[in-house]
Amino acid sequence: MTNKEPVIIRAAMLAIGDELLSGRTKDKNIGYMADRLYEAGIDLTEVRIVADDQPAIVKAVRELSRDYDYLFTSGGIGPTHDDITADAVSAAFDLPCIYDDKAMNILGAHYKSREVEFTPSRQRMARMPQGARHIDNPVSVAPGFIVGNVFVMAGVPSVFQAMVGNILPELRTGSRYYSRTILCPFGEGVIGIPLRDVQDAHPDTIIGSYPKFEEGKFSTELVVRARDEQKMKAAAIAVEKMLADIQQ
Amino acid sequence: MTNKEPVIIRAAMLAIGDELLSGRTKDKNIGYMADRLYEAGIDLTEVRIVADDQPAIVKAVRELSRDYDYLFTSGGIGPTHDDITADAVSAAFDLPCIYDDKAMNILGAHYKSREVEFTPSRQRMARMPQGARHIDNPVSVAPGFIVGNVFVMAGVPSVFQAMVGNILPELRTGSRYYSRTILCPFGEGVIGIPLRDVQDAHPDTIIGSYPKFEEGKFSTELVVRARDEQKMKAAAIAVEKMLADIQQ
Repeated sequence: MTNKEPVIIRAAMLAIGDELLSGRTKDKNIGYMADRLYEAGIDLTEVRIVADDQPAIVKAVRELSRDYDYLFTSGGIGPTHDDITADAVSAAFDLPCIYDDKAMNILGAHYKSREVEFTPSRQRMARMPQGARHIDNPVSVAPGFIVGNVFVMAGVPSVFQAMVGNILPELRTGSRYYSRTILCPFGEGVIGIPLRDVQDAHPDTIIGSYPKFEEGKFSTELVVRARDEQKMKAAAIAVEKMLADIQQ
Repeated sequence: MTNKEPVIIRAAMLAIGDELLSGRTKDKNIGYMADRLYEAGIDLTEVRIVADDQPAIVKAVRELSRDYDYLFTSGGIGPTHDDITADAVSAAFDLPCIYDDKAMNILGAHYKSREVEFTPSRQRMARMPQGARHIDNPVSVAPGFIVGNVFVMAGVPSVFQAMVGNILPELRTGSRYYSRTILCPFGEGVIGIPLRDVQDAHPDTIIGSYPKFEEGKFSTELVVRARDEQKMKAAAIAVEKMLADIQQ
C-alpha cells in the first residue's frame, strides 16, 4: 500500500436556489454530500451556492464541471417557473432541453395510477438535456439526471438523499482517508508551534486544528488524516506525544 | 418610492476550511450571514466553500471581490499552521502579510492581563495584509480584518457572529425586499402553470415556490418578494386569488 500512488477523485457541489441566499432555507444538502463523499473516498474540493438565475447557473456548471471529476447539483428541478436548473444545465452543455420520453412515461403512469391529472406543470419535471440519463427518485418519482460529469438532483433533502444513494455505487472512488480525532484540552495558542512541527515532520498527512470556544474557554480538536493508514497512525502518535510533553 | 430606482448592493461569501468539505463540521455561518444581509438590504448573490489551500483561496478571493460589492469570508484566521487565510488574502491583493502593530499590542496586552504567555502561535493571529483595518472581536480578542472590499472573519460561529455585528453598521445597504409568505395546501404540480401566469403579470416581483414533502404529501410555501411594497402586495393578492380559484 505505502508505495502505491493514491487515487484522487475531486468533486464539486453546486446548490441552487434563491432561498439559500436569502436565508429563508438553511441548506442541509452540502453537509450531507460532504459526509457521503468523504466516506466514499471522493474529495469534495469546492462548493458554490447560486440563485435561480440562468447565467449564474450556466457559469458555475461550466467552470465546476471543467475543473473537477464530478459536479453534483441540488435544487431547481421541480415543476414551477423558478425551477430552471434543467434549462440552465442544458445551456451549459449547449444541448436542447427536451421533454424526455422515458420521464414522461414514468410520470404519466405515476399520476394515472393515483388518478391525478398529469398537468403541464408536472410535465415540466420530465425536462432534461437531450440524451441525459436518469437518476431514479424513489421518494416522489420525478427523476434527476446525469449529463457529462454533472449529476443533477432535487433540493428537498429527503429526495436529494435518496438520489445520492442511487448514484454513489456508480461513481469512481479514490483512496479513502484514514483519520483519528484527538481531543486537546489546550487552546490553539498553546499548541500552534509544536503542532506545526509535527505537521512538517509528517508531510503526507493533513493535521487539522479545530478550536472550540465554550464557557469562556478554548479547547481544540485535532484531526489527523492520511490516505496511508501507517502514516496517519505515526502522525497521531506524534500529536499525542506532543500533548503529553506540554502537560508535563 | 415607486419611481425611484432601487439601490442594489451585491455580496458574496467565502467559507474557508477543510472541515466544511470533509463533513466534519456543518457550516453555520452561511445561513447566519444570509439572514443578516437580507435584513440589511444587501443581496447575497454567491457563496463558495474552499479548503485551507492557498491557491484555492487566492482564486476565490480575486474572483469574488472583483465580481461583487462586498466579499465576506469565514475561517482560517486562528493561530495554527492550517490557518492560512491572512496569507492567502494578502497574496490575492499582492500585499505583504505582516504582524500588525496594533493587533500585536491588543493581543499582547490581553495575554499579559491574563498572565498567559504571548506565544509565537498567538502572535500569528496578529498577521494581516499591510494596511488592513481591524474588525473587533469582543469574544476572543484576535481581530478580523478588512482589505479593499473583503471582510475577513473567524470561523467559530460565536466569533463570526460578533464580527458581523461589528461590520454591518458600516456597510452600504440597498433597497430592502418586502416579502410575504403564503402557505399553499397544493403541491407544485397543481399550481405551477397559474403561478407562472401570476409571475409573468408581476415582473418586478420574485415569486419563489418551495415544496415541502411531509408524510407522503406535497404542500408548498409561496414567497412573494419585491423592493417596492405596493408591487409585492399586488402580487401577493394575485397569488391568493389564484389559490382561491383552484380551491373552488
